[in-house]
Amino acid sequence: ARGRKPWKLGLQILKIIIITAQLVSFGLSNQMVVAFKEDNLNAFKHLFLRGYTYKLEDNFAVYTKSDFFESISYAVYQYLHLPNVSVGNHAYEWNGEEYPGLIICQELYKNSSIYPGNETFDIDTKVETDCLNIKPDVPTENEMLRNDKFNYSVDFQRLLSVNIYFTLKAVNLQAIRNNELPDCYDFNISIRFINNAYSGRIQVMLDQDVGINECKELKVSGSIQRNTPYLVLFDTFIILACLGSLILCVRSVINGLQLQYEYITFSLTRYNKTVPFSDRMEFVNGWYILIIISDILTIIGSILKIEIQTKNLTNYDVCSILLGTSTMLVWIGVIRYLGFFQKYNLLILTLRAAFPNVIRFCCCAAMIYFGYCFCGWIVLGPYHVKFRTLNTVTECLFSLVNGDDMFPTFKEMQQKSHLVWLFSRVYLYSFISLFIYMVLSLFIALITDTYETIKQYQREGFPQTELHL
Amino acid sequence: ARGRKPWKLGLQILKIIIITAQLVSFGLSNQMVVAFKEDNLNAFKHLFLRGYTYKLEDNFAVYTKSDFFESISYAVYQYLHLPNVSVGNHAYEWNGEEYPGLIICQELYKNSSIYPGNETFDIDTKVETDCLNIKPDVPTENEMLRNDKFNYSVDFQRLLSVNIYFTLKAVNLQAIRNNELPDCYDFNISIRFINNAYSGRIQVMLDQDVGINECKELKVSGSIQRNTPYLVLFDTFIILACLGSLILCVRSVINGLQLQYEYITFSLTRYNKTVPFSDRMEFVNGWYILIIISDILTIIGSILKIEIQTKNLTNYDVCSILLGTSTMLVWIGVIRYLGFFQKYNLLILTLRAAFPNVIRFCCCAAMIYFGYCFCGWIVLGPYHVKFRTLNTVTECLFSLVNGDDMFPTFKEMQQKSHLVWLFSRVYLYSFISLFIYMVLSLFIALITDTYETIKQYQREGFPQTELHL
Amino acid sequence: ARGRKPWKLGLQILKIIIITAQLVSFGLSNQMVVAFKEDNLNAFKHLFLRGYTYKLEDNFAVYTKSDFFESISYAVYQYLHLPNVSVGNHAYEWNGEEYPGLIICQELYKNSSIYPGNETFDIDTKVETDCLNIKPDVPTENEMLRNDKFNYSVDFQRLLSVNIYFTLKAVNLQAIRNNELPDCYDFNISIRFINNAYSGRIQVMLDQDVGINECKELKVSGSIQRNTPYLVLFDTFIILACLGSLILCVRSVINGLQLQYEYITFSLTRYNKTVPFSDRMEFVNGWYILIIISDILTIIGSILKIEIQTKNLTNYDVCSILLGTSTMLVWIGVIRYLGFFQKYNLLILTLRAAFPNVIRFCCCAAMIYFGYCFCGWIVLGPYHVKFRTLNTVTECLFSLVNGDDMFPTFKEMQQKSHLVWLFSRVYLYSFISLFIYMVLSLFIALITDTYETIKQYQREGFPQTELHL
Amino acid sequence: ARGRKPWKLGLQILKIIIITAQLVSFGLSNQMVVAFKEDNLNAFKHLFLRGYTYKLEDNFAVYTKSDFFESISYAVYQYLHLPNVSVGNHAYEWNGEEYPGLIICQELYKNSSIYPGNETFDIDTKVETDCLNIKPDVPTENEMLRNDKFNYSVDFQRLLSVNIYFTLKAVNLQAIRNNELPDCYDFNISIRFINNAYSGRIQVMLDQDVGINECKELKVSGSIQRNTPYLVLFDTFIILACLGSLILCVRSVINGLQLQYEYITFSLTRYNKTVPFSDRMEFVNGWYILIIISDILTIIGSILKIEIQTKNLTNYDVCSILLGTSTMLVWIGVIRYLGFFQKYNLLILTLRAAFPNVIRFCCCAAMIYFGYCFCGWIVLGPYHVKFRTLNTVTECLFSLVNGDDMFPTFKEMQQKSHLVWLFSRVYLYSFISLFIYMVLSLFIALITDTYETIKQYQREGFPQTELHL
Repeated sequence: ARGRKPWKLGLQILKIIIITAQLVSFGLSNQMVVAFKEDNLNAFKHLFLRGYTYKLEDNFAVYTKSDFFESISYAVYQYLHLPNVSVGNHAYEWNGEEYPGLIICQELYKNSSIYPGNETFDIDTKVETDCLNIKPDVPTENEMLRNDKFNYSVDFQRLLSVNIYFTLKAVNLQAIRNNELPDCYDFNISIRFINNAYSGRIQVMLDQDVGINECKELKVSGSIQRNTPYLVLFDTFIILACLGSLILCVRSVINGLQLQYEYITFSLTRYNKTVPFSDRMEFVNGWYILIIISDILTIIGSILKIEIQTKNLTNYDVCSILLGTSTMLVWIGVIRYLGFFQKYNLLILTLRAAFPNVIRFCCCAAMIYFGYCFCGWIVLGPYHVKFRTLNTVTECLFSLVNGDDMFPTFKEMQQKSHLVWLFSRVYLYSFISLFIYMVLSLFIALITDTYETIKQYQREGFPQTELHL
Repeated sequence: ARGRKPWKLGLQILKIIIITAQLVSFGLSNQMVVAFKEDNLNAFKHLFLRGYTYKLEDNFAVYTKSDFFESISYAVYQYLHLPNVSVGNHAYEWNGEEYPGLIICQELYKNSSIYPGNETFDIDTKVETDCLNIKPDVPTENEMLRNDKFNYSVDFQRLLSVNIYFTLKAVNLQAIRNNELPDCYDFNISIRFINNAYSGRIQVMLDQDVGINECKELKVSGSIQRNTPYLVLFDTFIILACLGSLILCVRSVINGLQLQYEYITFSLTRYNKTVPFSDRMEFVNGWYILIIISDILTIIGSILKIEIQTKNLTNYDVCSILLGTSTMLVWIGVIRYLGFFQKYNLLILTLRAAFPNVIRFCCCAAMIYFGYCFCGWIVLGPYHVKFRTLNTVTECLFSLVNGDDMFPTFKEMQQKSHLVWLFSRVYLYSFISLFIYMVLSLFIALITDTYETIKQYQREGFPQTELHL
Repeated sequence: ARGRKPWKLGLQILKIIIITAQLVSFGLSNQMVVAFKEDNLNAFKHLFLRGYTYKLEDNFAVYTKSDFFESISYAVYQYLHLPNVSVGNHAYEWNGEEYPGLIICQELYKNSSIYPGNETFDIDTKVETDCLNIKPDVPTENEMLRNDKFNYSVDFQRLLSVNIYFTLKAVNLQAIRNNELPDCYDFNISIRFINNAYSGRIQVMLDQDVGINECKELKVSGSIQRNTPYLVLFDTFIILACLGSLILCVRSVINGLQLQYEYITFSLTRYNKTVPFSDRMEFVNGWYILIIISDILTIIGSILKIEIQTKNLTNYDVCSILLGTSTMLVWIGVIRYLGFFQKYNLLILTLRAAFPNVIRFCCCAAMIYFGYCFCGWIVLGPYHVKFRTLNTVTECLFSLVNGDDMFPTFKEMQQKSHLVWLFSRVYLYSFISLFIYMVLSLFIALITDTYETIKQYQREGFPQTELHL
Repeated sequence: ARGRKPWKLGLQILKIIIITAQLVSFGLSNQMVVAFKEDNLNAFKHLFLRGYTYKLEDNFAVYTKSDFFESISYAVYQYLHLPNVSVGNHAYEWNGEEYPGLIICQELYKNSSIYPGNETFDIDTKVETDCLNIKPDVPTENEMLRNDKFNYSVDFQRLLSVNIYFTLKAVNLQAIRNNELPDCYDFNISIRFINNAYSGRIQVMLDQDVGINECKELKVSGSIQRNTPYLVLFDTFIILACLGSLILCVRSVINGLQLQYEYITFSLTRYNKTVPFSDRMEFVNGWYILIIISDILTIIGSILKIEIQTKNLTNYDVCSILLGTSTMLVWIGVIRYLGFFQKYNLLILTLRAAFPNVIRFCCCAAMIYFGYCFCGWIVLGPYHVKFRTLNTVTECLFSLVNGDDMFPTFKEMQQKSHLVWLFSRVYLYSFISLFIYMVLSLFIALITDTYETIKQYQREGFPQTELHL
């Protein structure tokens, strides 16, 4: 891969710079949006959830009937009094004709009579939904509500959940500080009281779903103007650069494949031998594949980004994954150019040579690892929060190997059953010892050995394959 | 171990799949039960413990007489008003004739007069129990109770503990969502006020003991049906598969032992030599032993599982340990088949060859480790929570070696005695340095060295024992 | 570098002792000042922030209009009643003629009418400031204030922030205990209610800016006297010692450069060869450069320190960075003298020889690292607190490699989008595995290899460069 | 060291068993005492500190005058009402004639007039103490106190601290459960309001000092009896065993020294050579020294333990350090016997051979380490809690190297000064990289190299010193 025309390298360097610039500008503008959303979510939780404090976040629930009704009344009351309560510039939604207002729905089993006392029940598993609409602008009807005397009846035996939905609007004025035009936000808020388990614990959750629009009518005095057109221009430029790079790389790969085809034919006709797979792979330059993938991702990602910036799309996640991955690949691609220096190459070659062995060893270790995962999940699951689901078991054990806090893991084990307690100790001690002392050490042995082999090769020459002769 | 009939391998692969499937289905159904139990426990704590919040869990106690009496009154009051308070479908127990109700018992020393002021006391160590029964359906008698005027007298000088017992019933309706038939639960709740230490701190604990029964009479409209029969069928199939695998492996082991016996006889008659133990072991294939153990565990575990699913047994723990361990062994057994590939074998051989040295070294390290454990326990125990019991000392030191947070450990040391403070610093610095810098490094040296030895053997041939000649 | 006159070594040893002594005395006297400042800040937060507790520190905010007004009233009320409230010896500022008192300012957009309901707004981005002065010694005017009826009107639509400024004075009497003369402190306190985002959440912050003066008039009975003159004397002595060391080292370096120049000339005229850069560097002793830098830093730092101690300057930070860095360099310089022993030298040589390779490898690893940083920031930023800004991403990933808690990092991921959740798992697992198993292992391989090379050199002689022949 | 008489080994094994048994019995009995003390301390904090909750422990302070007076009144009120309040069996102290009661003392500067407003003050640094005695049995006098109207005047300008002292008595009845005779406890409680800093923050602390006596008069029905005599007997037996071991080891060491003396004389007269120090050391067996130290510590520790058990002494700390250290040494001594096996010996020899190099390297690393410590302390001290004192800096950096959580350390840095923030990043990144990547790797290189050297020696014979020829 030596001796390429330098302008190809130049194109790659240009790509690194502009792709990183694009990512940073995208990230910074997103950072502001995320902060605004989160501040609002925080404010809504403090405004509409009764007794909410920051510390309770994960365990916010009601346990008594009076708490339940008061929580619902509180949310409705706060909604109706919002203009006098909130310090933000939140406003009720207005659909042009009227205020759609707040909707409060309960989901119930259609018919259910449960007598746990004598262990009999009769239940219809169909679910009914029963809704009520409260509008902020109907004064007489809501008089009682305003006085905090909201009567709401619920059949707890049949209740699955109570959901309160409403939409608030706001303008993100913070943007003015960054010399951007402010956007208008729709916060679709849902407060859910979930009683799925009928366990005496009704979980309370507040979620928001945010829509971002360009404001309809706006007048800003000062030097602020929309910079969307410039961003779109820049994205287009990036797409073109990546297209150029893509075409060049595809050409090179095709050339390589042609050469490979000719060599196979030659080898077959002359020596009557099929070429082994590893030799064939030598014709395909992995770095080109990497650049091609990166280019494709960038192009798709940039197109999505343009759509987002012109408010045609809101799927931020897919776009960010595409752009993020492509940026990562572009940066990793730099290593290729570092490999042109002798001493850097040694290190890169070591990693590449050690890779197959590491993967092989990971397979073996994974068998033991998954064995431990299943075993820990089934035995310790009921007694330890970190072992509750298979996913958390995997994360917990992986973290333990890599230096997570062990003492809390030991300590949080519920000490109800002596047998399980003993098992947990044997389990944890053996797992940690095995993985930290044996497995991690073997990784080091693998890399050390490969490093010495590669160093010797560099001194004495690499072993020749048939292809190079 | 090469050249086995492929259908034996097939049986093992089948076993991995079905055993894992069994474990996952068992685990998922358990996960729901555990979540239901825990939600209820949470609800009960909030309902019956006065002033309970999630954060206080470990240190929930009362310190004054008024708090003590109010806590007891509160629990009784909440119990009597349960139908109006709880949002869950909890019901009082009904034994067919009457409501057994709530029992409140105090344990007292039979006779005790203690005058700490002039350091004299007269105590009878026999323990009396004094109980009171409160029923939820006796209106007149409980009138005062309902009005939160529960008079309860206690002689604090003699009091060992006050215990409140009652049973609540509930139906786990969440099961309907998973298309399973709901079960009926008995929650045997005990609230204990423990005054063992007479230290001015009465600890308050709420525990539940859960019984699960099939509901007596139930009528569910919708497509739900009992899937227990299918699960039992599946478990039976697993037992049969494991029996098959067990028989095959036992046969192979017996063949090996016969061969060993013949070789010993031959060696004795021909060369007049006894065969060394290590040579004898070569006839016994460790993998078969592993499979046999795993099969036996699976068979016993599956039988227990069938019993649990048909509600004949409730000992979940033993069953889960058996199934968990067997699944772990089955997964580890996969490594045997990976070892058939040359390059995978290198890694497995290294681990196996390094194992005796690692164990040997662990013995030496364990001596130093236990020395530190005893020393830390006796000296630092009174000044540091993590050194309170020998068990936590062991866990704490083990965690420190493997990367636990050290700074909090340093910081939590109470600074009452300068001598102990100084000792703690010397102790911790020396322990951590010794183990992390010397012991862990030596592990790596051991593995690295073994890896190189095995690699050389693979290149140049393994050293021959007499047996192979 | 052997055979130096011993009094040069003596000067360096003297320097280590006196520079460390200076640093320790400076640090201890600062420690007291810092503790005093912090205790006061704590006291002010408890005195002036309504509902403040230690746990809320980071999330102290108001969400409702009533809370907002009450918080402002509370701060003003507490200020006016300070002498009856505070247990410390805080006093109002007195500028000789009158009490400047408290100033309460609101920042507003000049003109703004925002109607989020119908997505229109008209805003003037110029910012107005509107202030109010409340003096503690005007009884009639403040009568209402004293009665906690402070009327304050705010236009929340335009409000950017409300700031309360006032100055309190105090004397640090703790100094008497350390036999120092107490200083007089000015605490310029600002309480800020920040509404930049208009998100319904107004953050409340209390900051202090501290000025330290010598008290004007003081009378202390007891054996306390100002020790500033002795400190200044000591600092001057250090400056002189460093000047001496500086001159000696500069002379040595100049001698080395002359020798280098001669050698280059000789090499050019005799062999007609240019001397390679690495050979040229051998004439410049790195240790001298280190000592020169350290001396210069010490001299500047000591001058600043004298200025601070005579209350002419307050820029503690620059001074501490200069003195701290110079002390570090002086201590590192000790390694040079340890290198004179054969066995110590081995280790130092290994580190020095491995350094370029480590740096080279760090470059390669940094590429992958930055790739991961950018990717994590853009994708996970909106869903994980640790990935919110590029800076925290860098710190988080660096910490993860070096043994930080992983499980919390996994757990705190918001589970809103399944795609992102999956991405986060792939991202974290791959990053941690790659860096802990491959990169860290390669570092060890690098050092191990270098160690063996150097050891062999020591046994068999170092490779000769042309220069040594 | 081979071929010792086996009864010497037997004595050591006996020693391990009995010393460990002694330690465990001592530790378990202490564990109960510690738990009782801590439960009482907890109870006292809840009884006498106003507004105390478990979470506030470290930051319990009062900030306003009203809080201060109410806290004092509360403590006095609770003390006077103790029999009606506490659920434990706490009683007032009775000295035979009267109740000494509660003493409340204030420490004040003799005369101080401080005017921070105009920066003048006049202070007399002599400290006065002014006390007040409140007795629980004087009804008329304390009438007001009982009604919570305790008038207490304090001059905050001069106040250094207010201390409340009183003694409560209790009996540790928990001992009965362990079949031990209960002891009588004196709790000397001091509640301190500390105003040293005059910062507006008065710290509140409750401490107890515990005296343990045999109760004067006690009558216990049941099978409990004092087991002290048996313990003393056992301790005496241990002392005798250790004396025996001590005498044997001292004899062996003396023999070794005689042999050394003879060899030196021989060498001097025959070859006219002085024997190098390392050769001389070969005559002294380090293991004997270890056993001698351990024996001496055990003997002194056991004597102290007897004194403690007979209530003549209360200095638990010294005794526990002596016994703990001796037990640790005895366990470490086991390694000597493991070293008799060839394969165990390899590992022990490696550690011993690597030890000098590790120490040497630690010296070099310590220079850099202390450089960083000083630098971090002076620069970051004012901005980061972990860098406040030199001691915590040392612990923090040591912990960071060994895998402590880094992210919190990064995050807690106060972001007041940009310069310092930047410095902190450079400081932490460079420190962690240097130590984790370079220093820890070099440790591994050292050990790996030594292991290979020793292994080669075992195969090919150790290098001969003159002595062995």
